[in-house]
Amino acid sequence: MIVTILGNNSALPAYGRHPTAQAVEVNGEIVLIDCGESTQVQMQKYGIKWRKLNHILISHLHGDHYFGLPGLLNSMSLQGRTQSLHLYAPAPLMPILDMIMQVADSELAYPLHFHPMPEGDATLEDNPEFSIICFPVVHRIACHGFVITQKNSGRKLVLDKCYEYKIPPTFFNDLKQGKDYIAADGSMIPNIAVTEDGAPAKRYAYCADTLYSESYLPFIKNVDLLYHESTYLHENADKAILRFHSTTVQAAQMAKLANAGQLLIGHFSSRYKELDAFAAEAGAIFPGVHVTVEGTAYEI
Amino acid sequence: MIVTILGNNSALPAYGRHPTAQAVEVNGEIVLIDCGESTQVQMQKYGIKWRKLNHILISHLHGDHYFGLPGLLNSMSLQGRTQSLHLYAPAPLMPILDMIMQVADSELAYPLHFHPMPEGDATLEDNPEFSIICFPVVHRIACHGFVITQKNSGRKLVLDKCYEYKIPPTFFNDLKQGKDYIAADGSMIPNIAVTEDGAPAKRYAYCADTLYSESYLPFIKNVDLLYHESTYLHENADKAILRFHSTTVQAAQMAKLANAGQLLIGHFSSRYKELDAFAAEAGAIFPGVHVTVEGTAYEI
Repeated sequence: MIVTILGNNSALPAYGRHPTAQAVEVNGEIVLIDCGESTQVQMQKYGIKWRKLNHILISHLHGDHYFGLPGLLNSMSLQGRTQSLHLYAPAPLMPILDMIMQVADSELAYPLHFHPMPEGDATLEDNPEFSIICFPVVHRIACHGFVITQKNSGRKLVLDKCYEYKIPPTFFNDLKQGKDYIAADGSMIPNIAVTEDGAPAKRYAYCADTLYSESYLPFIKNVDLLYHESTYLHENADKAILRFHSTTVQAAQMAKLANAGQLLIGHFSSRYKELDAFAAEAGAIFPGVHVTVEGTAYEI
Repeated sequence: MIVTILGNNSALPAYGRHPTAQAVEVNGEIVLIDCGESTQVQMQKYGIKWRKLNHILISHLHGDHYFGLPGLLNSMSLQGRTQSLHLYAPAPLMPILDMIMQVADSELAYPLHFHPMPEGDATLEDNPEFSIICFPVVHRIACHGFVITQKNSGRKLVLDKCYEYKIPPTFFNDLKQGKDYIAADGSMIPNIAVTEDGAPAKRYAYCADTLYSESYLPFIKNVDLLYHESTYLHENADKAILRFHSTTVQAAQMAKLANAGQLLIGHFSSRYKELDAFAAEAGAIFPGVHVTVEGTAYEI
């Protein structure tokens, strides 16, 4: 599971930093979280292939989180995309996209399935490779965070034992799914004799633009990697409250309370050219913090 | 009068080239023509100041010509713009912008004056510094070209003569506007004795996405600088017709027929990585051609 940062700045692009977008690779598929202006260019730059992209999540309808979406949708169509795309976004985005297509007298060349976001929390997607849930965060307009869970590949083979019991490799996938093996002579080899527990499922939580609030803590408990916005340094905590954003200290505090494995921070205000103080302030509370850098791939 | 190319590619950003946008500096003001995705980032990169920007022209509603507009409008608001902005664009853009502001629960901090484009040709703006006319070109949807005329600064002072007649510098602006000078003793110095004809008005014509058509030739006759799209090389002339675009040969032919001073070509298809053949093909017909390069400022 790999999170590539495509944009880590807040609304105003500045110092080479772009508005929010993240590509989450999970079992070989890409889930795109938010799609600020220039996301398609950032995807090209950092080698994120739209052919692996089947799910886009939009946290809320402030422009810095979706102004890159119409361009990306159009470009995939021009490049011959035919595979379905699932878009999870606040309901009012759909008529905007419809009007944009209508005034251009255009249609997408592929099926776009629009899933309006619920008011509260919900499971958005649950397939054999991963699941996505959404949960409300606290912003000036309706806004959601997301947890993406990578499903593990089942039980792990103990190869020595498999060979010892002469289990044919054609049965290995069944073993991973927990099945027992019946040999040609009718004897049964119990699954547990030749496999062990697989790797635990990996979980990534994305806390979109939000005030510090413990209301969403239950959804992000014990995640392996937590992204929490940190628009401001601690000295601007008053501005953070006014604008429904968070600070370094609050993001780090949330990671600590959530018992997260690691913490990514981003959505930096354009008032900050240098970000060293972000690492220092958050790191003092939660040492496993990464001040995100665009183009960097954070592996879970 | 300076034309800075902010984007010279067609719909798909490719090879570091962006969708269409041009900043035209005319007597110290910026007129922005089209506003493809990432225009605000390109403006930052190439030092185009929004404080000088009071007029934006949108040729048509294909996304590669306006998807950067909502972000630019928002960013100027966040940066404290209070001065009015005039936007000339096809009428259906206004409800789209309205919805975008409404779902964000936001308002611009400055007055945005939306001027819907007429069906035919018209004068869009006429002020002491410059004028803008629009004219229809031939595309799949309604699309306009533009001519921006820089008004000259009036008559040119012949300083030696001004000093000889002891005309005070405080009267120089009146001289530029053609006034005669009445000396303290009541004698009249005729304007023509101390000034000569000013520089001729400079004209820039922008032919947006279009099929080759002589229908718009009257509007671009004798311009100092002509931009004409050249999406394709000559070998793809059939594709150009199908998609309502033009080729190198057609752009150059139009410049020749128009008796243009110089020619800029752009809106290159993403099928072309290298552009050398564009210069060769167009240059064979019209030697004063420039294959546009992003960030380059073409002075008239």
